[in-house]
Amino acid sequence: MSSVNEVSSVLCFGCQVKQYRHVSKALGGLEAVFSVIVPPSLDTRGHELTPVVYYLSGLTCTDQNFIQKAGACRAAARLNLIIVAPDTSPRGARVAGEDDAYDFGTGAGFYLNATQEPYRPYYRMYDYVVEELPALIEELFPSPAAPARQRRCSITGHSMGGHGALVCALRNPGKYCSVSAFAPIAHPSVCPWGQKAFRGYLGGIEAGEMYDATLLVADPSRVQACNLDDILIDQGTADQFWCEGQLLPEDFVAAAKNAGQKVTLRMQEGYDHSYFFVSTFIEDHLEFHAKRLRER
Amino acid sequence: MSSVNEVSSVLCFGCQVKQYRHVSKALGGLEAVFSVIVPPSLDTRGHELTPVVYYLSGLTCTDQNFIQKAGACRAAARLNLIIVAPDTSPRGARVAGEDDAYDFGTGAGFYLNATQEPYRPYYRMYDYVVEELPALIEELFPSPAAPARQRRCSITGHSMGGHGALVCALRNPGKYCSVSAFAPIAHPSVCPWGQKAFRGYLGGIEAGEMYDATLLVADPSRVQACNLDDILIDQGTADQFWCEGQLLPEDFVAAAKNAGQKVTLRMQEGYDHSYFFVSTFIEDHLEFHAKRLRER
Repeated sequence: MSSVNEVSSVLCFGCQVKQYRHVSKALGGLEAVFSVIVPPSLDTRGHELTPVVYYLSGLTCTDQNFIQKAGACRAAARLNLIIVAPDTSPRGARVAGEDDAYDFGTGAGFYLNATQEPYRPYYRMYDYVVEELPALIEELFPSPAAPARQRRCSITGHSMGGHGALVCALRNPGKYCSVSAFAPIAHPSVCPWGQKAFRGYLGGIEAGEMYDATLLVADPSRVQACNLDDILIDQGTADQFWCEGQLLPEDFVAAAKNAGQKVTLRMQEGYDHSYFFVSTFIEDHLEFHAKRLRER
Repeated sequence: MSSVNEVSSVLCFGCQVKQYRHVSKALGGLEAVFSVIVPPSLDTRGHELTPVVYYLSGLTCTDQNFIQKAGACRAAARLNLIIVAPDTSPRGARVAGEDDAYDFGTGAGFYLNATQEPYRPYYRMYDYVVEELPALIEELFPSPAAPARQRRCSITGHSMGGHGALVCALRNPGKYCSVSAFAPIAHPSVCPWGQKAFRGYLGGIEAGEMYDATLLVADPSRVQACNLDDILIDQGTADQFWCEGQLLPEDFVAAAKNAGQKVTLRMQEGYDHSYFFVSTFIEDHLEFHAKRLRER
């Protein structure tokens, strides 16, 4: 019995851009919204052929920033991809301190499962993205051949969402066919945003080890299990947060190299941290994923 | 001596997306902002080769809605077009009633010159778009060969801005090489939005005759003087404002036909009034203009 309600559906480049609302188990029973771009071919070609790309957004965002500003529908239609864009945190938990800063609490769930009170019951965006959301997508767009033939999926994201994408992929070998990121917070244990999140949600920086993409990718056995032929990262050189040392994609590249993981880091001259940057390169990322999602 | 200050400059699809601030003579000395998409080829190919497309936005918008949501940079780069996006009204005139409704006053200048107090000194978006803004663009991006070889320009817009684009083109034969519109308020004299604007800014519905695209295009001598081979209009069939009779593009088409003006009205099945609609078809419109801007 579905507990997911469609809030809106709008046409864009032939895709249906849908927003859904539901009560989230992972997020402690709070209401949550997410958006889905449904390509026009879905109706005619059958659900089982349509893979999913999860897109995780950055600090302060909702599901709408990507949907309204990234211009992803054109490529989603052409490449026949479902794109799923969740929110960046639980909303309305009403716990102390969650609305005090842009980089912690509301809009800043950091794609982890909090262990510290008062966040622990609600701030569980890792479980939400990895477990609850895929189950909801399967409910909304059932594969006729399921479960014999599992729907394939990949994951990407921007900034905090790039961190989330890398962590979700590296912690779940075989779950995601490919992973990419736009200006990810790639080494959170050593940057102010990550340290604040790990201290607040997990009780200390060391407790964030399993949510740090650079630490995860440094493990050769994990790299081998994930079996990712490449990881695509775009980083603008005019990105103020890269300049301030919040992102550190170079650390991720160095750790990956040592562990035998190929990473393609493209430094994009003159681009900043905004959706002007994401929109310019989203098609490259969707092509990167589409190629790997269709390999069997 | 320039009085225009650059507020910001961001890269997108190789274009520079710039916002400028200046004191506007047309708008009674108020500060105004506008945005410009500058294609990457401008530097290398010389200003005189780069034509301009003006994009006028709809009710409640600023210059930013188009810039952030329409995804126009990709096509601007490919077609080598400068795109100029002004605001939709003066801001901060501090006259009675200007902030009482979404469809009159701030955010709703209607691209006309008000004759009624207290709006008359400030609400002059027609002069702003037709006279002041082109002069500022020439100041910012001077044509090396000017004035011998005038920069060519076209105009388009969405909703209230589609009305503005049609009116500006039809009232100024020879000034715009081409005109198009997205879901324009095409017959304002007979729709609630237009009637409210004409009453409030001009003192009566009849006084809006020269700001009504359907009435303007009904004049065969005007059509002949404008010498436009075609006018492109896109209209979504799921557009609530079209359903409510605010837009009436069919009236414009009928009047144009009687006067000998070709109009291509494309009814876009299932599309609404939002930027999801504009972003889907902006490239078609820019191609429509680029073709005509490069004909000599």
